[in-house]
Amino acid sequence: MTPPDVPGRARPEGKVTIAEVAARAGVSKGAVSLAVNDRPGVSDATRERILEVARELGWRPGRPAGPRSPVLAGNVGLVIARPARMLALEPFYTEFTAGIESVLAERSFSLLLRLVGAVDEEIAVHDGWWRSGQTRGSILVDFTEDDPRIGALRPLGMPVIAVGHPGLTGGFPSVWTDDAAAVTEAVRYLAALGHRRTARVGGPAALGHSGIRTRAFDRVVAELDLEPAPSLSTDYSGEQGARATRTLLASAQRPTAILYDNDIMAVAGLSVAAEMGVSVPDELSLIAWDDSQLCGLTRPSLSAMSHDVFAYGAEAARRLMAAIDGGPECSGPVPTPALVPRGSTARAR
Amino acid sequence: MTPPDVPGRARPEGKVTIAEVAARAGVSKGAVSLAVNDRPGVSDATRERILEVARELGWRPGRPAGPRSPVLAGNVGLVIARPARMLALEPFYTEFTAGIESVLAERSFSLLLRLVGAVDEEIAVHDGWWRSGQTRGSILVDFTEDDPRIGALRPLGMPVIAVGHPGLTGGFPSVWTDDAAAVTEAVRYLAALGHRRTARVGGPAALGHSGIRTRAFDRVVAELDLEPAPSLSTDYSGEQGARATRTLLASAQRPTAILYDNDIMAVAGLSVAAEMGVSVPDELSLIAWDDSQLCGLTRPSLSAMSHDVFAYGAEAARRLMAAIDGGPECSGPVPTPALVPRGSTARAR
Repeated sequence: MTPPDVPGRARPEGKVTIAEVAARAGVSKGAVSLAVNDRPGVSDATRERILEVARELGWRPGRPAGPRSPVLAGNVGLVIARPARMLALEPFYTEFTAGIESVLAERSFSLLLRLVGAVDEEIAVHDGWWRSGQTRGSILVDFTEDDPRIGALRPLGMPVIAVGHPGLTGGFPSVWTDDAAAVTEAVRYLAALGHRRTARVGGPAALGHSGIRTRAFDRVVAELDLEPAPSLSTDYSGEQGARATRTLLASAQRPTAILYDNDIMAVAGLSVAAEMGVSVPDELSLIAWDDSQLCGLTRPSLSAMSHDVFAYGAEAARRLMAAIDGGPECSGPVPTPALVPRGSTARAR
Repeated sequence: MTPPDVPGRARPEGKVTIAEVAARAGVSKGAVSLAVNDRPGVSDATRERILEVARELGWRPGRPAGPRSPVLAGNVGLVIARPARMLALEPFYTEFTAGIESVLAERSFSLLLRLVGAVDEEIAVHDGWWRSGQTRGSILVDFTEDDPRIGALRPLGMPVIAVGHPGLTGGFPSVWTDDAAAVTEAVRYLAALGHRRTARVGGPAALGHSGIRTRAFDRVVAELDLEPAPSLSTDYSGEQGARATRTLLASAQRPTAILYDNDIMAVAGLSVAAEMGVSVPDELSLIAWDDSQLCGLTRPSLSAMSHDVFAYGAEAARRLMAAIDGGPECSGPVPTPALVPRGSTARAR
């Protein structure tokens, strides 16, 4: 999976020493250390030359010798380009990052976490962490179509796990759920219950996996010859999920079923149905996605496309740790979200 | 607030250079850099001597010169000694850390996050991060009575913000909510509604603020001459909140009101009441704590001791950043959680 021209992988791990880098660059070992740790004490020109040599030789500080401290084995980077307030509202990221941390903790690794406003800042952060030796690899999330991180970060030769379908993540090794299959299962199930007008409340349109779900939704609606129904985009918040549900329930062609792209929006949708006097599941079936503990706590409980998000994060971290250990990069899906029917779905009347 | 004997604060910030440390230790500047960055290339004895001198002089790498990269200004450490699965279930930490990150992001800081199993590992992680220059300060949470972190970390002279009542956090500058006042307000309100038998479903007994809440609960129950009612301890999970609620509702002296220590347990309690055929709020009043978005999404919606947990995390981060900037350490509370009455509380029948 690794292209041969990737620096940092050009020679087998652990063969290059700081002394070789220093000799090739014509500087002291101390100067190499200052340069790679981004500390003052060497000129910018010297620093650039040292980093260039280090990249050529595939050397990274501290790697051959391994960690000195048993409790601090290294850091893994995660950058999230979403507003902080929105992050606080979505159970997905809590569970996903907790899964990552569970695996890192076993190896005495820490998670270096950063919120940014835009993808160019994200690129600069990963790049800076890697070049300065602060991280030994990164987890990339929220891929878009033609994601600029692919071109910018792939040449660094940094161990990476991309969370997203290989159709979105370029040459990065990746881990993903089969969203198209899950959407198809949900709509087929609703159709089998007699629902001919199923709508969808989706996530941000800019995210690649939202597009995958939307295309799969449109495809299965056409295949089953169901009535055309809208896919609405949201920011994943309960607030926008509630607003989208109000729009759908107030429309002339009210859907009899709604599929949500996460669970907090489905919880909000259930509340809106009660507020508008629409009985769930008698008049309206709802299916949530992700299936955090929320889905089992509502009345009625929420049917959901269920997967273990904690395990998904843990699997991403395990694959990254394997790459950091110098193992082969490998991509693969985690289990496809499976329908768990609960109290919010029933036969269409 | 800073005792005069704290190393790292012994001289004003920015006055000591790497050259002075090198001269005093009798080594090169490069050797100092290797030592403080925990890199191979100097002997253990030399490393120890350099770190000792650096501590004596109050010097830390990179600080006087400031960050080289505009996107990587530094890291702040946060260690959490809770099981990862439990962390994934509690809205409090999601909102609290999102609040922290929102402030760090403004300053191009990142959060270095680690899960550990026990407090001695937590101490080693903070200590290691600080000594190796990976963090410029730490946020400490989940204080217990006689917390061992006070004795172990205070002498490092590392900028710290402690999240917890000053009665628990020793000499650390701290930020807290007035839990005793909030518990008192909740029980007084329920008593005014005619509830003479109010029970409490609390958090882990080992946590200092659980003890503060339990003592305040017992005190106000006695003051108002209410019937004695149990305070049950849990791990904050919905599962244990549900179990505690079943125990209370199955008891001979069934309470007419329950006060929960977080919101996910109150959501679970609402579901248990429905399962056991106990009508909320007609037969049972419930009050949640923290008031994440969940409380507004249930039917009936949950009355709660409400505070802005995101803002609480942001305030902790702001105080830590002020300390990192060399400002005076200062402690103070954030606003006391305030009762927001919703659909889950009513007059006792």
